[in-house]
Amino acid sequence: MPSYTAPTKDMQFLLHDVLKITETDIPGYDELEPDFTSAILEEAGKISSEVLQPLNAVGDTEGCTLENGVVRTPTGFKAAFEQVKEGGWPGLDMPEQYGGQNMPYLIGTAVGEMFSAANQAFTMYQGLTHGAASAILAHGTDAQKDMYLPKMVSCEWTGTMNLTEPHCGTDLGLMRTKAEPQGDGSYKISGQKIFISSGEHDMADNIVHLVLAKIVGGPEGIKGVSLFIVPKFMVNEDGSLGARNGVTCGKIEEKMGIHGNSTCVMNYDEATGYLLGEEHKGMRAMFTMMNEARLGVGMQGLAQADAAYQNALEYAKDRLQGRDVTGAKNPDGPADPLIVHPDIRRSLMDQKSFVEGARAFILWGATMIDRAHRSQDKDADGLVSLLTPVIKGFLTDQGYDMTVQAQQVYGGHGYIEEWGMSQFTRDARIAMIYEGANGVQALDLVGRKLAQDGGKHVMAFFDLVKSYAKENAGQDEAFDRDFLEPLKAASKDLQAAGMYFMQNGMKNPNNALAGSTDFMHMFGHVCLGLMWARMAKASMDALKSGTADAAFHETKLATGRYYMARQLPATALHLTRIQTGADTVMALDAANF
Amino acid sequence: MPSYTAPTKDMQFLLHDVLKITETDIPGYDELEPDFTSAILEEAGKISSEVLQPLNAVGDTEGCTLENGVVRTPTGFKAAFEQVKEGGWPGLDMPEQYGGQNMPYLIGTAVGEMFSAANQAFTMYQGLTHGAASAILAHGTDAQKDMYLPKMVSCEWTGTMNLTEPHCGTDLGLMRTKAEPQGDGSYKISGQKIFISSGEHDMADNIVHLVLAKIVGGPEGIKGVSLFIVPKFMVNEDGSLGARNGVTCGKIEEKMGIHGNSTCVMNYDEATGYLLGEEHKGMRAMFTMMNEARLGVGMQGLAQADAAYQNALEYAKDRLQGRDVTGAKNPDGPADPLIVHPDIRRSLMDQKSFVEGARAFILWGATMIDRAHRSQDKDADGLVSLLTPVIKGFLTDQGYDMTVQAQQVYGGHGYIEEWGMSQFTRDARIAMIYEGANGVQALDLVGRKLAQDGGKHVMAFFDLVKSYAKENAGQDEAFDRDFLEPLKAASKDLQAAGMYFMQNGMKNPNNALAGSTDFMHMFGHVCLGLMWARMAKASMDALKSGTADAAFHETKLATGRYYMARQLPATALHLTRIQTGADTVMALDAANF
Repeated sequence: MPSYTAPTKDMQFLLHDVLKITETDIPGYDELEPDFTSAILEEAGKISSEVLQPLNAVGDTEGCTLENGVVRTPTGFKAAFEQVKEGGWPGLDMPEQYGGQNMPYLIGTAVGEMFSAANQAFTMYQGLTHGAASAILAHGTDAQKDMYLPKMVSCEWTGTMNLTEPHCGTDLGLMRTKAEPQGDGSYKISGQKIFISSGEHDMADNIVHLVLAKIVGGPEGIKGVSLFIVPKFMVNEDGSLGARNGVTCGKIEEKMGIHGNSTCVMNYDEATGYLLGEEHKGMRAMFTMMNEARLGVGMQGLAQADAAYQNALEYAKDRLQGRDVTGAKNPDGPADPLIVHPDIRRSLMDQKSFVEGARAFILWGATMIDRAHRSQDKDADGLVSLLTPVIKGFLTDQGYDMTVQAQQVYGGHGYIEEWGMSQFTRDARIAMIYEGANGVQALDLVGRKLAQDGGKHVMAFFDLVKSYAKENAGQDEAFDRDFLEPLKAASKDLQAAGMYFMQNGMKNPNNALAGSTDFMHMFGHVCLGLMWARMAKASMDALKSGTADAAFHETKLATGRYYMARQLPATALHLTRIQTGADTVMALDAANF
Repeated sequence: MPSYTAPTKDMQFLLHDVLKITETDIPGYDELEPDFTSAILEEAGKISSEVLQPLNAVGDTEGCTLENGVVRTPTGFKAAFEQVKEGGWPGLDMPEQYGGQNMPYLIGTAVGEMFSAANQAFTMYQGLTHGAASAILAHGTDAQKDMYLPKMVSCEWTGTMNLTEPHCGTDLGLMRTKAEPQGDGSYKISGQKIFISSGEHDMADNIVHLVLAKIVGGPEGIKGVSLFIVPKFMVNEDGSLGARNGVTCGKIEEKMGIHGNSTCVMNYDEATGYLLGEEHKGMRAMFTMMNEARLGVGMQGLAQADAAYQNALEYAKDRLQGRDVTGAKNPDGPADPLIVHPDIRRSLMDQKSFVEGARAFILWGATMIDRAHRSQDKDADGLVSLLTPVIKGFLTDQGYDMTVQAQQVYGGHGYIEEWGMSQFTRDARIAMIYEGANGVQALDLVGRKLAQDGGKHVMAFFDLVKSYAKENAGQDEAFDRDFLEPLKAASKDLQAAGMYFMQNGMKNPNNALAGSTDFMHMFGHVCLGLMWARMAKASMDALKSGTADAAFHETKLATGRYYMARQLPATALHLTRIQTGADTVMALDAANF
């Protein structure tokens, strides 16, 4: 059975040595002293390893069951959910006013990685609630906030997002679910929603569904979509629960993975709903949830990759098979451990260098969100908005590949369910799809985010890389050679791709869109390259100042050198592909495929 | 539910327009006229689509069950197996002497692709039998051949390969299963074997297990391993079945996929076995099966990719979502089909260009096997031996990635089991693992095959590419530019990598082995590049000669141009990685990971 150890040490290094969070001017960060963050991370790590991780396989094996409209979660989920609630984890970064602890999003993100790595299906119940609560926080009336948020911040009630219908996923303008105004401020919601994560279950007293629907008589298409709050049980004025609302779970989907989370078909049959935000502005309100959710999904890619990597590493150290060609490493044993073999090393280094780079990227992104929200910094908001599709798309594509690589280390034992490696792969697969399939992320990046605010944010990103390289050059020859030069080359590739889009996308947008996935990936590599340079610099500084933990920092440097030498050069291939434009991609008539 | 259409037209094109099989001097190929091969392929396509494919989901859902030692295959498998047997398919390329039809391996390969694409788990019962029969054919005594082959060629009896034990997979020298000579020419076999595909089931009267074991008192390690025939039921002199032998199925493994095939733990408890081939030469005998099996597994990678691609294509044409940014393609409908979107196209073209290139590669490889066996051509034997790890490793790695891409086209519908796309991914995953995990294939390629016979075969491969480019240059400017130049560039990359290994592998073999997976992949790309050049040439010739099917050939050319422009340049990235050597890969002590 797999195990999971929370990366508290690595996170502390990132928060304090790399991001130096207490030195920033982000409101609330001054309290995040090393001892304080360490205490939180250690505690979160403990519940992850000891409570959530042991239920991961249980959730996969048992799944959720629907009987007479009631969904039962796997054995142990309910008790674990109580523990999570008692620890106050769901409200960690929620306002104190509603029972939260008002911590920065950064801390919620670090804890979220641990919970997701330990048990993604379980953590989704809490994650969706967080997203729904954020939408109510941003768009709700004071009465709505007072009615729903205290219960949702504590996870006494959970939340859902209802977008997809059988015939429409990405293209929500095709939506058929309708909302009829009742004259008293409420609406009757009717229609069917599918793929609703945590849609129905037995772990909360009430479920607050956020539902996209079209108000009857409103504008056609996406401009006629509004967002509604539809509680499973009606809520009385005093906060007590009233009658059952007209929303039921029609079916639980059989899925490839995340079996512990109930993915429901939800039927709305004249269910009472309340407008959240403005009429016909549902997409805007929903995007409050979506952007946060996309960062959370990117984090899942990293989290599953880390959990899978940790187990692959242990297996590679334990399993004796074959001999080191340069001389036996375990001469008294019947064979050497797998880890002596260069191709196993290559795979483990791919995984390790991705996981650590991705973690830095996510936490850096989280600081931008805090800066945007807590300091009302529009530049930070623009930059993280640009990077959101990269975080979601790149980290989940790569994260999935890493779970596949980790599974591969086990050979045949990776394919049977007994060892748990298949579950990491099957669970990680969904992250490439939900909250906008990765192709849609790439489209968002190239078709929308690049040009946003006149291209200001992408220029800011390039400036950021350039000034970083400039400021840190010339101090250490090896650092320049191993880190700054590859970073500059990769960033140049990315700029060349952006230039290609500008020059060729005008005459035919397909010249840009045909390269969108390549662009998203090369952007991700440049971000991880930047992160590795920053981490390497921090480790070099630590070593120079005579750190007590030289091994940690030497390892960090070696891992970074691997990434820069063997992963970052992928930008050149992506650029080559991008520069072929749309010609070969769009050559065929659909009928001739 | 997914469907499958056999690629008979594409195969006919490959056999007759590209490989021009009747013009070769391989014995038996003169009979393979287009009408003749067409009749076989059409018939095989029919049984694939109509009989095997509809059982694919059944096999996945029901799986195999073990009760009181009896394994039950999924509903319908037994009846379908009867149909396959009645059609004479299992003996297609087996000697007439034993009831086969003596067709070339090439034809067996083409049919095998169809069967595997339609139902991989089902086809494995027959595939393992074929492999076991081949080993008996190559290494058995006349008496053994007469006793087992007629029944195995017809699949009245099926076969298995027993290598893996709980503590050893790749490193078979660690094997513990033992064989005690009984003085009468027989042995008592005792031990446990795991991951035995088709190990026990209800579709055959007898199962012929080929088992690797160590004869008591023999040499240590891999040099003491021998191969034994261990029938489930003893066989009397007259061919009738006798007593049950001491071999039982202890457990069926829960796996990620191929649920329709019973993957068994097999317990041998003083089972009676008979030496196959020479004492202590078991690995050599087993490799007869393994090499054939490796090509067959490479083919599975292609087969699952094709089945997945076909369904992704249909979905992309049917599913309406969003609008073509260059103008609506379905203005009267609520939205355009997915296929208008450039990133969906990119994905479909990745899949299509891989599938068609891989099919050419496999069939070309099969002609080499026929040339090696039927003409005793040592050069062909050496070349296909060099290419075997490439076919196995590259085609299954890429084949898996393509099933993931096909699944991605479905968005959320790809993740739920209802649409069948998850099964393609889960089934395809095993092909990267069994018959030697792909890392082991890469090691075999770089550590053994490159230097085999003084490097003669890899030089022959480079010469082959070079002379192809030379002979076909200067006739058509567009062909030179779109096909020959990229092929030459990629081949140059591959040669540079080989040169790097020679120059740096001597002082430290890890400098070569650290790049082994990259080398395997770049080798695969060069092979597919060569195949695409040959296919393009054949299509250009057909167009020049006024073919009635211009659309087919125009499509072929467009697909080839895509591969050359967007996939083949991956060789440059692989070369870059390879040339970094072992330094960053091996930098860490195992304890410091």
